[in-house]
Amino acid sequence: MRAAVLRDGRMIYRDDVPEPTPGPGQVLVAVTACGICGSDLHFAAHGDQVLAATQSMSGSPSSGASVDLSADIFMGHEFSATVLEAGPDTDTYAAGTAVTSIPVLLAAHGIEPIVYSNSTMGGYAEQMLLSAPLLIPIPNGLDPRHAALTEPMAVGLHAVNRSAITQGETALVLGCGPIGMAIIAALRTAGVENIVAADFSPSRRRLAATMGAHLTLDPAAGSPFDSVTPKVIFEAVGVPGVIDDVLRRAPVRSRLVVAGVCMEPDTVHPFYGIAKQISVQFVLAYEPAEFTASLRAIAEGRIDVAPLITGEVGLEDVGAAFADLADPERHCKILVTP
Amino acid sequence: MRAAVLRDGRMIYRDDVPEPTPGPGQVLVAVTACGICGSDLHFAAHGDQVLAATQSMSGSPSSGASVDLSADIFMGHEFSATVLEAGPDTDTYAAGTAVTSIPVLLAAHGIEPIVYSNSTMGGYAEQMLLSAPLLIPIPNGLDPRHAALTEPMAVGLHAVNRSAITQGETALVLGCGPIGMAIIAALRTAGVENIVAADFSPSRRRLAATMGAHLTLDPAAGSPFDSVTPKVIFEAVGVPGVIDDVLRRAPVRSRLVVAGVCMEPDTVHPFYGIAKQISVQFVLAYEPAEFTASLRAIAEGRIDVAPLITGEVGLEDVGAAFADLADPERHCKILVTP
Repeated sequence: MRAAVLRDGRMIYRDDVPEPTPGPGQVLVAVTACGICGSDLHFAAHGDQVLAATQSMSGSPSSGASVDLSADIFMGHEFSATVLEAGPDTDTYAAGTAVTSIPVLLAAHGIEPIVYSNSTMGGYAEQMLLSAPLLIPIPNGLDPRHAALTEPMAVGLHAVNRSAITQGETALVLGCGPIGMAIIAALRTAGVENIVAADFSPSRRRLAATMGAHLTLDPAAGSPFDSVTPKVIFEAVGVPGVIDDVLRRAPVRSRLVVAGVCMEPDTVHPFYGIAKQISVQFVLAYEPAEFTASLRAIAEGRIDVAPLITGEVGLEDVGAAFADLADPERHCKILVTP
Repeated sequence: MRAAVLRDGRMIYRDDVPEPTPGPGQVLVAVTACGICGSDLHFAAHGDQVLAATQSMSGSPSSGASVDLSADIFMGHEFSATVLEAGPDTDTYAAGTAVTSIPVLLAAHGIEPIVYSNSTMGGYAEQMLLSAPLLIPIPNGLDPRHAALTEPMAVGLHAVNRSAITQGETALVLGCGPIGMAIIAALRTAGVENIVAADFSPSRRRLAATMGAHLTLDPAAGSPFDSVTPKVIFEAVGVPGVIDDVLRRAPVRSRLVVAGVCMEPDTVHPFYGIAKQISVQFVLAYEPAEFTASLRAIAEGRIDVAPLITGEVGLEDVGAAFADLADPERHCKILVTP
């Protein structure tokens, strides 16, 4: 079958990938749409760094994850699909049902994240395996392309939930890539009354306003902290220096939620945090309940993800799409529609 | 009057300091005892660094604090005292009453922290001014030397309160200086059932056990994280590298409370925090209610601070005591008794 795979740091089109076979508890699905995530771009460019950082860390359930960078790697974890057939002794929805799922495959040997793998297919392919107990039918006749944005929107909802923000607290979102946008949408859905978003890109600022920001700021025109006194700051940039700048400028007892994935070592001044008693909550991914809540919010029209989708490509053009995503003026989320 | 002052980085004895005169709302007191705090040692050695870091930061109420390092500086913020006389139009306790107070002086021109100042006297002196509304009588006939430890014990209580630790959650305290000890005592008082303390010094480990640690570990013999899986980690070391080591080794979704005051820039890997969704709460000082709660815990015998007091010096010997405190085998808390 056809798929786009990561090989030597680049996304390559292949038409000779073996079709996966569902085991017990698994379901073979045809991918309808799969969003390209910034973490995929990062892994393509710096996979060795990601693996080294993961391995140098203890205490994490994913510490043991091993990926061979010299072999083809399957990616794609923001997907919607239609059911094709169930594995042996497995009940599932009827063939043709539109579904989505958190990107986890329950296999005989254990739980496999659908993220970067030499063996487990992701959403950049015609077909993939999902886990019968984790399938969620796409409700309300929702466009499956929109349902593919459930995953990144759940990341934003999780960040907002972990921040414990209340409606009257001012939120500042630094960085308006897809995660920043998801945070803005989740804040708006939660009824937060003052949402401020900052990004260097004019088109991203416009999109942030569309998604629910009450005020947008250009950091090139001055620090956002000169214009606003936020109680909760969402860091969705993920480059070195941002965390320390927040610690230096943030108000006393404010809360920083770090959602941007900075892979490099970063320099901070703990004294800034101490003097102002700042709390820093690092966040990642979401709970299954947050995933279903995001799907519901999209399906019920409380979050309109359509403006975030700025492109659509076939499997042949995933490589080009990875390159195109470098330009924030042109793109936010590109969907791969096999 | 007699006092010890910071001059050119060293503590100097003076017998010619003018006696302070209480203004309205203020009370002149005779200092009974004043503990030497690690932050005083740090300010003596690196005052320029402290002031530069404070000035480079925005959003803090203390940002504007200015101290002239080329003039004598008064310090000493962990004190107990006896009332001498009230200022004009000021009601207070009878002369001779044993009192303590949070280290804040309410003055005509505003609120002054009693911490480092060219003009506001601290506890390393025969007499000082306190604020009538903030005075707390020392209850239960408590030894005023023990009451002087209210302040550092309140710092520990505040760190524990901000951690929101529950009794069944394992606590790991890194660093058993006075703040680590105060955290251990507050954890024990809160009924936390598994308190683990780590310090390189054998005598500090013994003292940690006395103060309530159920288990003590020598980091030289291996990372504490190899022996224990804490839910809450208290960082009371305050040197570069500790925060990153915690992020690297701590369990998923653990909480780090940073109570150690690291003044230098520090390198961290945000990825470790993100991958394990760690929360980092920077803490400083305490609420007034935590100060009174600590005094009560000491006065009622729930916390015995006597073992922490390892030395007592007069004003003439504050300089020597600052030097002696460098040796963790010999000292924990030295009291100045003018």
